[in-house]
Amino acid sequence: MALNESLRKEFIAILGEDSVFTNDADLLSYAYDSAVLEPKTPKIVLAPSNEEELGKTVRLAYENDLPITVRGSGTNLSGATIPEKGDSAVILTSKLNRILEINENDLYAVVEPGVINARLFDAAMEKGLFYPPDPGSNQVSTLGGNVALNAGGLRGLKYGVTKDYLMGLEFFDYQGQLVKTGSRTIKCVTGYNLAGLMLASEGTLGVFSKLILKLLPPPAASQAMMAIYKDVNTASQTVAAIIAAKILPSTLEFLDQKCIKTVEASSKIGLPTDAGAILLIEVDGNYGPGVQEDAEKVRAICQKCGATGIKMAKDEAEKNSLWEARRNTLPSLARLRPTTVLEDATVPRSRVPEMVEAIERMATKYNLEVGTFGHAGDGNLHPTILCDKRDRQEFSRVEAMIDEIFDVAIKLQGTLSGEHGIGIAKVKYMEKETNKATIDFSKRLKKAIDPKYLFNSQKIFP
Amino acid sequence: MALNESLRKEFIAILGEDSVFTNDADLLSYAYDSAVLEPKTPKIVLAPSNEEELGKTVRLAYENDLPITVRGSGTNLSGATIPEKGDSAVILTSKLNRILEINENDLYAVVEPGVINARLFDAAMEKGLFYPPDPGSNQVSTLGGNVALNAGGLRGLKYGVTKDYLMGLEFFDYQGQLVKTGSRTIKCVTGYNLAGLMLASEGTLGVFSKLILKLLPPPAASQAMMAIYKDVNTASQTVAAIIAAKILPSTLEFLDQKCIKTVEASSKIGLPTDAGAILLIEVDGNYGPGVQEDAEKVRAICQKCGATGIKMAKDEAEKNSLWEARRNTLPSLARLRPTTVLEDATVPRSRVPEMVEAIERMATKYNLEVGTFGHAGDGNLHPTILCDKRDRQEFSRVEAMIDEIFDVAIKLQGTLSGEHGIGIAKVKYMEKETNKATIDFSKRLKKAIDPKYLFNSQKIFP
Repeated sequence: MALNESLRKEFIAILGEDSVFTNDADLLSYAYDSAVLEPKTPKIVLAPSNEEELGKTVRLAYENDLPITVRGSGTNLSGATIPEKGDSAVILTSKLNRILEINENDLYAVVEPGVINARLFDAAMEKGLFYPPDPGSNQVSTLGGNVALNAGGLRGLKYGVTKDYLMGLEFFDYQGQLVKTGSRTIKCVTGYNLAGLMLASEGTLGVFSKLILKLLPPPAASQAMMAIYKDVNTASQTVAAIIAAKILPSTLEFLDQKCIKTVEASSKIGLPTDAGAILLIEVDGNYGPGVQEDAEKVRAICQKCGATGIKMAKDEAEKNSLWEARRNTLPSLARLRPTTVLEDATVPRSRVPEMVEAIERMATKYNLEVGTFGHAGDGNLHPTILCDKRDRQEFSRVEAMIDEIFDVAIKLQGTLSGEHGIGIAKVKYMEKETNKATIDFSKRLKKAIDPKYLFNSQKIFP
Repeated sequence: MALNESLRKEFIAILGEDSVFTNDADLLSYAYDSAVLEPKTPKIVLAPSNEEELGKTVRLAYENDLPITVRGSGTNLSGATIPEKGDSAVILTSKLNRILEINENDLYAVVEPGVINARLFDAAMEKGLFYPPDPGSNQVSTLGGNVALNAGGLRGLKYGVTKDYLMGLEFFDYQGQLVKTGSRTIKCVTGYNLAGLMLASEGTLGVFSKLILKLLPPPAASQAMMAIYKDVNTASQTVAAIIAAKILPSTLEFLDQKCIKTVEASSKIGLPTDAGAILLIEVDGNYGPGVQEDAEKVRAICQKCGATGIKMAKDEAEKNSLWEARRNTLPSLARLRPTTVLEDATVPRSRVPEMVEAIERMATKYNLEVGTFGHAGDGNLHPTILCDKRDRQEFSRVEAMIDEIFDVAIKLQGTLSGEHGIGIAKVKYMEKETNKATIDFSKRLKKAIDPKYLFNSQKIFP
């Protein structure tokens, strides 16, 4: 059955008039996400307020053949929250935003999928605990979205990504039945690791209702610093040297000259605009003198690798201004040209110098304006191509460069996507990294779990 | 087709005469594992030596309807490596035992599934790196088995379990096609997290050929200690107090009086045989003075919680003797009676005192000889029932006690199995912890991935 007035009334009976949207203005707001892709307008937008409503909504939509896309804050960069074709429904998680439990003794939180990442971070901190995953979107993106995309962030090198914090999950299957997986315990091997399967599945296998997330005691001390380089090569070689010295900084970020100049022009925080590249580094730990010792080691390595200057953050304010510079990089780049194409091909960290060099070479070859920054410490760079999508000639060069970025990343034993996901944007590249058997296997799995292909089915394996 | 002489010859053509076993003596060796369950004799045992042979073996067996059980060292405690019914095949991974790469710059190892856990640990250490997961069986169990069961171990509290170290995986599907998932990078979100799905799937979804495992820089310093208690309650309350102080010891183990006396009788290492319980604790970190500070804090907490004595390990030899005591616990208990039933129901760590109390009460109620030890720090206790399976009256009391252990664990928001797996042993309890929808979901998935139900299909969801 298609979406008609009688079905709309059934949704209203479940959710109430205020939580069912079908007027054009509302629908248009949910037609796109943060990826540079064609919008698609859904036919109905549904905002359940609790688990029961969510389950009934999933069931009714599925029974009536409506394609379903679940949307948190729509910050994803691969089109994973662009609605499906046809009479499609968007389910919003904005009202499923309760932190249900923060357990200080057992170091976990239980949350609904619509809770904003930074809200959990703050709530955990208030209880003296720490939720490490911090995607760039942490002030706006939801934890449900973070799990659906396996969001990364700045702390990946030492603390890992969302995957490393997902202990358990409850979700609705295609019949609107609640599936429970994982536990409040660190160790749990009861049945299939369905939480692991649902993670990074981009809404293609079911609809999350509850997440159990691991928390840590926070580090007691930290030291941030900026190391300045004449060129990108010496900077990227420093990254490998720090890891080779068996130090795992909590954050190890890279900005090239383009990024430095752009951030400085907009933020005026005193970045060295004549530098070829900078590294922003933070080490942390539970014991102050140990952290200072690590910071000194890192400083010495930076110097040995050719840093022309190193600035240690003297206090919290200086530290914050360094991270503000990093967080402002993408927004300030995005202001330069109408279209910002942000990639996240990732390589083993020792291959970062080769990857950075390849990106510079490609920018020249394709005559494109490219700024590169990112999580150098875990090999996850964000070459950012500044362009205008309406200039078809230029945009075809952009597409050619993206193709080549993926080829190089895979040649260097890396991956198409470190943290942004496949969504719609990278579907056509999937076989480059994996193989036909992997895609066939995934499709068999998808078909068994979503027999009518209604869960966000244009994503990953259409 | 059933197993006949012509099929046997086809296996020989792939593997060679020396790697295909069909005589009774050989078959009997692979009829059981370390669980207290009925053995089942396979009809053929196959030992491929490389990836190509493995793929062809899987394909030929599957095409010919032979049920397949993959066996590493057969150390698992839930019957997950007991062969299937009918004309079943056992695939040994003993010749797939190469460490293919240890990458010091990028902190990972690539191994075949038959590599023994301790061999990787040693090989990593030689290069100044650290593979943390250390199941009790680490000297004999294989990494393939560790991944298939998501093996835990003594370091779970601080370092997590096998799940936290699996970066990527290659495995053969039912058609003998090689599926590739994950990456050599910390961040990878290309397609479904099939490595996460295969983890803990107990050989029911495919056959591993290659594992990519994360390595860490090892801690630079550690301090072990033993805290002695009059009774189990004060000991178990100490566990919660240590975590509440935001300290995560690398290891935090519990032994009750029965265990202490039994280990001491067999090992003579100076354990306090009049104690009601002991905790064996190790803290570690990258900075010596910081580790000593943590150790002092832990000592103070133990004292405050009622420890009657605390012994700090003065050197490596004293530290080793403490851990030897812990590792000898199960073998020495096992010598007391003909049958040893080792459970691993797990609770959130703050519920350990309640769980320990419940186990003591049950031992009295069912009139059984029980020693309890285990990973108190992550709520993963091993109540060990000493009995004689041939005494049917006694064994029915054992079964009743196990039922009750699971009921209590689940009531305390815990899980049926922290690290041993479901296998055959806990199949009937699955629905207690999850629900019918979860089991239905898992069966749909199983059926799509293994359409003829030949991959170890009596396990988890028969």
